[in-house]
Amino acid sequence: MAKVAVIMGSKNDFDAVRPAVDILKSFGVETEVRVISAHRTPDLAHDFAKGAKEAGIEVFICAAGKAAHLGGVIAAYTPLPVIGLPIKSSTMDGLDSLLSMVQMPAGIPVACVAINGALNAGLLAVQILAVKYPELMTKFEKYKADMAEKIRRDDEQLQKEL
Amino acid sequence: MAKVAVIMGSKNDFDAVRPAVDILKSFGVETEVRVISAHRTPDLAHDFAKGAKEAGIEVFICAAGKAAHLGGVIAAYTPLPVIGLPIKSSTMDGLDSLLSMVQMPAGIPVACVAINGALNAGLLAVQILAVKYPELMTKFEKYKADMAEKIRRDDEQLQKEL
Amino acid sequence: MAKVAVIMGSKNDFDAVRPAVDILKSFGVETEVRVISAHRTPDLAHDFAKGAKEAGIEVFICAAGKAAHLGGVIAAYTPLPVIGLPIKSSTMDGLDSLLSMVQMPAGIPVACVAINGALNAGLLAVQILAVKYPELMTKFEKYKADMAEKIRRDDEQLQKEL
Amino acid sequence: MAKVAVIMGSKNDFDAVRPAVDILKSFGVETEVRVISAHRTPDLAHDFAKGAKEAGIEVFICAAGKAAHLGGVIAAYTPLPVIGLPIKSSTMDGLDSLLSMVQMPAGIPVACVAINGALNAGLLAVQILAVKYPELMTKFEKYKADMAEKIRRDDEQLQKEL
Amino acid sequence: MAKVAVIMGSKNDFDAVRPAVDILKSFGVETEVRVISAHRTPDLAHDFAKGAKEAGIEVFICAAGKAAHLGGVIAAYTPLPVIGLPIKSSTMDGLDSLLSMVQMPAGIPVACVAINGALNAGLLAVQILAVKYPELMTKFEKYKADMAEKIRRDDEQLQKEL
Amino acid sequence: MAKVAVIMGSKNDFDAVRPAVDILKSFGVETEVRVISAHRTPDLAHDFAKGAKEAGIEVFICAAGKAAHLGGVIAAYTPLPVIGLPIKSSTMDGLDSLLSMVQMPAGIPVACVAINGALNAGLLAVQILAVKYPELMTKFEKYKADMAEKIRRDDEQLQKEL
Amino acid sequence: MAKVAVIMGSKNDFDAVRPAVDILKSFGVETEVRVISAHRTPDLAHDFAKGAKEAGIEVFICAAGKAAHLGGVIAAYTPLPVIGLPIKSSTMDGLDSLLSMVQMPAGIPVACVAINGALNAGLLAVQILAVKYPELMTKFEKYKADMAEKIRRDDEQLQKEL
Amino acid sequence: MAKVAVIMGSKNDFDAVRPAVDILKSFGVETEVRVISAHRTPDLAHDFAKGAKEAGIEVFICAAGKAAHLGGVIAAYTPLPVIGLPIKSSTMDGLDSLLSMVQMPAGIPVACVAINGALNAGLLAVQILAVKYPELMTKFEKYKADMAEKIRRDDEQLQKEL
Repeated sequence: MAKVAVIMGSKNDFDAVRPAVDILKSFGVETEVRVISAHRTPDLAHDFAKGAKEAGIEVFICAAGKAAHLGGVIAAYTPLPVIGLPIKSSTMDGLDSLLSMVQMPAGIPVACVAINGALNAGLLAVQILAVKYPELMTKFEKYKADMAEKIRRDDEQLQKEL
Repeated sequence: MAKVAVIMGSKNDFDAVRPAVDILKSFGVETEVRVISAHRTPDLAHDFAKGAKEAGIEVFICAAGKAAHLGGVIAAYTPLPVIGLPIKSSTMDGLDSLLSMVQMPAGIPVACVAINGALNAGLLAVQILAVKYPELMTKFEKYKADMAEKIRRDDEQLQKEL
Repeated sequence: MAKVAVIMGSKNDFDAVRPAVDILKSFGVETEVRVISAHRTPDLAHDFAKGAKEAGIEVFICAAGKAAHLGGVIAAYTPLPVIGLPIKSSTMDGLDSLLSMVQMPAGIPVACVAINGALNAGLLAVQILAVKYPELMTKFEKYKADMAEKIRRDDEQLQKEL
Repeated sequence: MAKVAVIMGSKNDFDAVRPAVDILKSFGVETEVRVISAHRTPDLAHDFAKGAKEAGIEVFICAAGKAAHLGGVIAAYTPLPVIGLPIKSSTMDGLDSLLSMVQMPAGIPVACVAINGALNAGLLAVQILAVKYPELMTKFEKYKADMAEKIRRDDEQLQKEL
Repeated sequence: MAKVAVIMGSKNDFDAVRPAVDILKSFGVETEVRVISAHRTPDLAHDFAKGAKEAGIEVFICAAGKAAHLGGVIAAYTPLPVIGLPIKSSTMDGLDSLLSMVQMPAGIPVACVAINGALNAGLLAVQILAVKYPELMTKFEKYKADMAEKIRRDDEQLQKEL
Repeated sequence: MAKVAVIMGSKNDFDAVRPAVDILKSFGVETEVRVISAHRTPDLAHDFAKGAKEAGIEVFICAAGKAAHLGGVIAAYTPLPVIGLPIKSSTMDGLDSLLSMVQMPAGIPVACVAINGALNAGLLAVQILAVKYPELMTKFEKYKADMAEKIRRDDEQLQKEL
Repeated sequence: MAKVAVIMGSKNDFDAVRPAVDILKSFGVETEVRVISAHRTPDLAHDFAKGAKEAGIEVFICAAGKAAHLGGVIAAYTPLPVIGLPIKSSTMDGLDSLLSMVQMPAGIPVACVAINGALNAGLLAVQILAVKYPELMTKFEKYKADMAEKIRRDDEQLQKEL
Repeated sequence: MAKVAVIMGSKNDFDAVRPAVDILKSFGVETEVRVISAHRTPDLAHDFAKGAKEAGIEVFICAAGKAAHLGGVIAAYTPLPVIGLPIKSSTMDGLDSLLSMVQMPAGIPVACVAINGALNAGLLAVQILAVKYPELMTKFEKYKADMAEKIRRDDEQLQKEL
């Protein structure tokens, strides 16, 4: 079945990354969650990215902060789609990681989501896989319907409270 | 075969969007190229997005400038993956369209590429489709190899010139 | 009597939106307060905006954070004036919602107020309605006079404290 | 009939302001177009704003660049709704005038439109007046329909060209 | 003797303004500390600024946050030098008040200091007055020497601690 | 008579600085115009700043671009008021020089004017000197009146053209 | 042996600077840690920088916040390489100190590291010294290997936790 | 003798990089100038960086634009000091490349210079090498003296012109 590699540049990022892992599991998508630093373990990044397609990975989610190169470095080594998840660190309010991820030069795209947008990173992976796996498409459509239903209930709730 | 909808908020954006269309064609991916404004033709956006999956569309590329809502509006109506292509307009150097596209709230992702990064928008669509279509994966790997070869030739060329 | 629709993209935004509702009530303006997400409940947004004029709504206040499309999406579907209220979220210090709201493309204006400026959103709605309803104009002029009086008292108070 | 004061901080801004005047005329709205500087002719600003309501003005459009105080200064002296039109000058890409206009403190709103968004400033004035004047509402709805039609023609045109 | 008017847009700003008042007092400069809002009490601003020179004021310090027009509004009405003190509010990290104060258009300068830089606003007033009053020049030179001495002691202290 | 030192970090900046020199001359203020780099000729900066008061200088205008330290470096060595004039260079739209000048740490103020705001730098120097020299105060008040008159003529002119 | 001067503009910065000192010590590099303000003790800065090479200093680390001129001022007086360490202060999220340090004009470089990146400032000093001292090169290569090993352990740890 | 590797991500960057190469040559430093893309030729980047120390390289200069990862990628693979030269591209005025280079995470520094600051990148390499090679130190001190002399001549020239 579909398999997504969720990698982060530092174990400290895991709290910010967890919603991606959780949502993928809730969709029944297999995940491989790894701590791999583009800068501190470049060989590991190289080996993992090079071997990913053979290992059955179909989509990457790469989370990193500051000068967030992880998405670009992985994308350099794999033909698989790479989702970039910029993590806000203690300065610059996330702008540094956002620009480092989204402004990729021509030829090597990274599919960037919002700063600290782990849930959306997971959902985007589901959507990409759903192009291939019809059962994921069905589940995702149900997820969207449930989400809309939740907003409608919030709406009704607020009417009552006022 | 694979089919990508490339839509833009204004016909004036077409020059900035064209590299996406061209690269998709060079990969043999069918495209439907449309001018649809999230704000000026919302019903058209609604109808097109709602019907896209049935019409065989598998991936969206949405290009817009300024308060670039097109990606979000399309993503609201379709379960298909939506690639956001922020277009630089005459003020704010593209930051407005970038933030309007990438900072999507939880639940509705847009896969954002660089400001004016039309080539990458096209390539990302190819990568997403290549998860499903092995022949596109093969072509994309060749594309990357050719690109690397081009850089190597540039490298040699520069050595000679100096 | 005058009626303002105050809608927000998420129930979590209500604390930031409440001053708009309160000030409208204090002016005797009827409000309809709703949770409607441009992205998660686009059909609801469409239906509500399309029917608003018939339902007696005269002005919209739309509050949203991050890639804040709500104002633009509502403005796409209604001829009524739409006030945009950008809400600061956990990253980018409100700049993303501000630019997503204020930088609307030609043809579909949104009247943007300050980030988290709910009181001003409410007052602006009053001012717009006061063009039509002379009693609101009278009340608003009194409100301004009272506000000036309050500053004058603060000024006197500070003189005494020093 | 409805009357809009369009004032600008410098005669040099008139080219950037003209689309507001033109669109107002096309809707049959009377305009008074003035050069009044909040900083260089503060007394003129004071007198004009103080007397505007009596003179039949119903809405203000205030255009200025850099530290764009004109909207705030006018709003301080009149209860009428004030639309702020930030003009891009030679540095800071319009961010200075945008923030100087939109970030108004509590109590005195300015309804800000996009940087150099003169057309939208004019249309917003029309929408505000249309709350009161049904014939303007009718015209504005027609304007929106025509705009949608224009996009649809652009869309068809692009299909043909490709 | 020399007299500085320290005015702020809101009484809430006084904590951020106090270092300016304190340092002026420590130099023996008389201060008049006022709460005057450019937007909420424009007439008070007008009257105070117009009468300031006659009342013996020689320098202004104007503190305000967000769209911080106070410096510009006062400078419009007085020929005296106006020091702008941008106050950081809850969004935009002070950038809005900084740009609203420093980017004054040609003809009406405001002498801007750092965001929340009240001490420097007070010292700058002293320096300006010291051009005229030799005893303030002497005191200011002593102040600088003391400040340098303090750094030297910090330097020695740190050497010992390490 | 009054004397202002106008120094710039590079001779290339002179075109951007010239309006300061011209306006000072038009007010009859003596100027000493110098090219002194804080980084490339630090000893010259040191010597000039240290000797300035003795040499009759009463106010400094320091113009520089990029990491614009000139104002701070001069202010470190002189008790005289220092006006900072940030010059826009080829990147960052002037934001770098603005922040490098205005964000001075506590104890050493620089009176910053707008990016490329040379005219205002000159006028601010006049205003500072006018605290001491009544004839400059009279001239400056006339300058402001003339400026207002010019705006009024522009206003009348525009009325006629429309 | 190798010797690095670590200087900071204020004793308050020492907590942010300490990791640089600690890492240098762990590499056996001698440090001289000083509080020297470019603005408040310019003569001290001058004397220390001028004498540094003779005193055996080989590399500088200069830490400062806001309009962070310390690196530039030191670099103006010494031919030794100067590492700039921008410190985040209470406003502007570090952008002011970053731009004040990194945007040095042509001729006088400062080697800038990340905002609050004291560890990297120390490591960069080690790398610069390692060009000359082979034993530092050996230690630095071991440091990098240990760092990689730490990431690998984190990676294994995370696998186990999930 | 000393040897610096000057690498750039694209041959198009060479014009912006050339001043670094020229200044290194003028100091008699041997250069190896290469086009190596972190993203498009990651294996080449890996091989070159890994082998650089053995090949006699002592310092790296890495120039790249947009999401400028080249410095970080090279630094990941070599213990040698890496100077980052951010290149301004067509959007974001260089901020993206600056933040992508300077905001490196803990453990792997990049010594960043100004956007498009190629001359300074070259000079910084000289300064780093001069720690080891006394003849370069002598040359660099002469270079600084000449530069100061040039400013002094500009200063005299300007005096004459005025």
